[in-house]
Amino acid sequence: MRLPRGFLASGVRSGIRRKGPDLALLVAANGANAAALFTKNRFLAAPVVLASADLKRSGGRVRAVVVNAGCANAITGRPGMEAARRVRDRAAALLGFPKDEVLVSSTGVIGVVLPDAKIRAALPDAKNGLSASGLEAASHAILTTDASPKVAEASFTLAGRRGRVVGVAKGAGMIHPDMATMLAFVMTDAAASPAYLKAALREAAVASFNAISVDGDTSTNDTLLVMASGEMGGRELQKPSEGAAFRAALTKVCRALAWMMVRDGEGATRVLEISIVGARTGIEARAAAHAVATSPLVKTALHGGDPNWGRILAAVGRSGARFSEKRVSLELGPLTLVKYGLPVPYRESQAVRIFSRERVPIVVDLGVGRAKAWKLSCDLGHGYVSINADYRS
Amino acid sequence: MRLPRGFLASGVRSGIRRKGPDLALLVAANGANAAALFTKNRFLAAPVVLASADLKRSGGRVRAVVVNAGCANAITGRPGMEAARRVRDRAAALLGFPKDEVLVSSTGVIGVVLPDAKIRAALPDAKNGLSASGLEAASHAILTTDASPKVAEASFTLAGRRGRVVGVAKGAGMIHPDMATMLAFVMTDAAASPAYLKAALREAAVASFNAISVDGDTSTNDTLLVMASGEMGGRELQKPSEGAAFRAALTKVCRALAWMMVRDGEGATRVLEISIVGARTGIEARAAAHAVATSPLVKTALHGGDPNWGRILAAVGRSGARFSEKRVSLELGPLTLVKYGLPVPYRESQAVRIFSRERVPIVVDLGVGRAKAWKLSCDLGHGYVSINADYRS
Repeated sequence: MRLPRGFLASGVRSGIRRKGPDLALLVAANGANAAALFTKNRFLAAPVVLASADLKRSGGRVRAVVVNAGCANAITGRPGMEAARRVRDRAAALLGFPKDEVLVSSTGVIGVVLPDAKIRAALPDAKNGLSASGLEAASHAILTTDASPKVAEASFTLAGRRGRVVGVAKGAGMIHPDMATMLAFVMTDAAASPAYLKAALREAAVASFNAISVDGDTSTNDTLLVMASGEMGGRELQKPSEGAAFRAALTKVCRALAWMMVRDGEGATRVLEISIVGARTGIEARAAAHAVATSPLVKTALHGGDPNWGRILAAVGRSGARFSEKRVSLELGPLTLVKYGLPVPYRESQAVRIFSRERVPIVVDLGVGRAKAWKLSCDLGHGYVSINADYRS
Repeated sequence: MRLPRGFLASGVRSGIRRKGPDLALLVAANGANAAALFTKNRFLAAPVVLASADLKRSGGRVRAVVVNAGCANAITGRPGMEAARRVRDRAAALLGFPKDEVLVSSTGVIGVVLPDAKIRAALPDAKNGLSASGLEAASHAILTTDASPKVAEASFTLAGRRGRVVGVAKGAGMIHPDMATMLAFVMTDAAASPAYLKAALREAAVASFNAISVDGDTSTNDTLLVMASGEMGGRELQKPSEGAAFRAALTKVCRALAWMMVRDGEGATRVLEISIVGARTGIEARAAAHAVATSPLVKTALHGGDPNWGRILAAVGRSGARFSEKRVSLELGPLTLVKYGLPVPYRESQAVRIFSRERVPIVVDLGVGRAKAWKLSCDLGHGYVSINADYRS
């Protein structure tokens, strides 16, 4: 996939991971306005602390992002921070950019100080490999336990000019509301101020990364970054009322990446699309959706293709959402399984068929209000256990 | 195990489950004072609604408990309630007890109305089988996916008289704080008022059933019931300041049953004993313990015997508990893994050895206060997936 105008990328091997590429470089040679959302985990990895501070110092300007897989450089204290700084400083010197316009990002094992010498040694290769068609190489270099690389694109038109949004992400495990262990970098040739980008990014995240859950765990390194080179031309987007087409494209790319993440949940074979409707408040609707999305009993039933709807409602029942049992209904695709608190006769074979598809939509109507929530989750299978019981070794 | 004086029990087959015993009967022929804690799930199974109301109506007097496995009779509306009532009424008539002194209790699949005719037909057998040595048969008849029956006992002395506490429970999956899908029936020959028993039961639950987690799911049927026949003699316990020896024995039995439940977590091979210390508030300490106890990443690492402590701290970091990274320490048994926010060198082989034991104790010191929490969890392995991906069929 071609990058938007103004961006180059590459992916190379630094040797942190046992094999394969593990170092990606994204460059906006003429600079880009940028905004980011970082993890809400109270343990912040060194690269998150550094990138967040640099973004503030530069006033939302970015020229390069250095991403490594294989080591999260989290819970590593001052040595970890110094290693992150050395990577940033070397990349800035090599590329001739101001330090605070170079962001670093890491993913991998926690508690190990980044072996920054390996990255610094590989940076010249990464620089030489930069190209407008380098996204694929970069998309491979940021993966950890992901089964496949994740890229998405969308285009839009503003005042007669065509623009593009292209995103690359890694996810797999530890995916959860508020962006647990995910890295996503979105590039566009739109012209937009950092403040505009921040608002647009928040809006896009609510409908994408913040609505997915693989295992409820969140990481110390999650980062969602958007960079706008402005090379499509036109007036810079500044007011929230402007650029609806751009924001729609940004949300579309984020949703596509989020879908890929949950579909690629460790060992996952299908996606549960949970809609809670008729809740009293948005908080209660989200709590109910969250309880279903993270229930191991629901997720294992999904893995088995067993439409054991009692587990879905039991999860809703413990979520804290208020409702009256007599008003609750549950739909599985076109089938109504429970109506006003009572099981409805249905053909088990039909329910099994729907529950065994790649995408399984369920709607729980609490019947007591108008608030809604929507969330994607995936099944919990042997693959998840195998991957995670022995991740480090 | 012998029952306390004043109690009889039996376990027979009614045919609800595909095979094996599935109907238990507990009887206190001369009556017992009783207290119960029920599930906090908003979907209350019919037997929970009925037993809770009966216990209130009788003023805390119980003469019999009818327990079936194989069908939870939850989310079954009026037909479910009528089926539960028919079981209660038949048992009361057969045994010659007032209806409101006969409690019903069910566990199994949700959304299926109790096939009460099968139970009613088997009740005479259950009555004929009653004996002071019937606990073992009863303990088998209440199991669902449990690998083994769970009984525990303790004795105590009050004013020179010896008394006993004997408990029987079922657990396995859906075990979680606030007693998710567990049934536990505790019998004692102590003399105690219903109000005294309620307070003692709450105290015991905090240190036992409410501190365990298998998968974070809670059920519609959880019940913890204590019955006191008073046949050990002596003055009836009424004031909270009395009977410390009895309360200690009650807590001991509840803890033993809780340990068996978490050890017998579906597919579990080891138990994680989580202590959070140095938290600002009790709520934050419990939130941190809860996050670790329910983290699939921690539980799969435990399954693999992989001391991946980054996952433990990442779970603490997303729990909402406040702390400063620089003050956090983590101990695994006698090994210090993290001190003041920095990894401490340790022998990996030693950590693996401790993390592979049947009981794995970890202590996270947040370093910012004096509040504590304690919780037991178990590993998440292939067994859990196998059991739950295809539970109904």
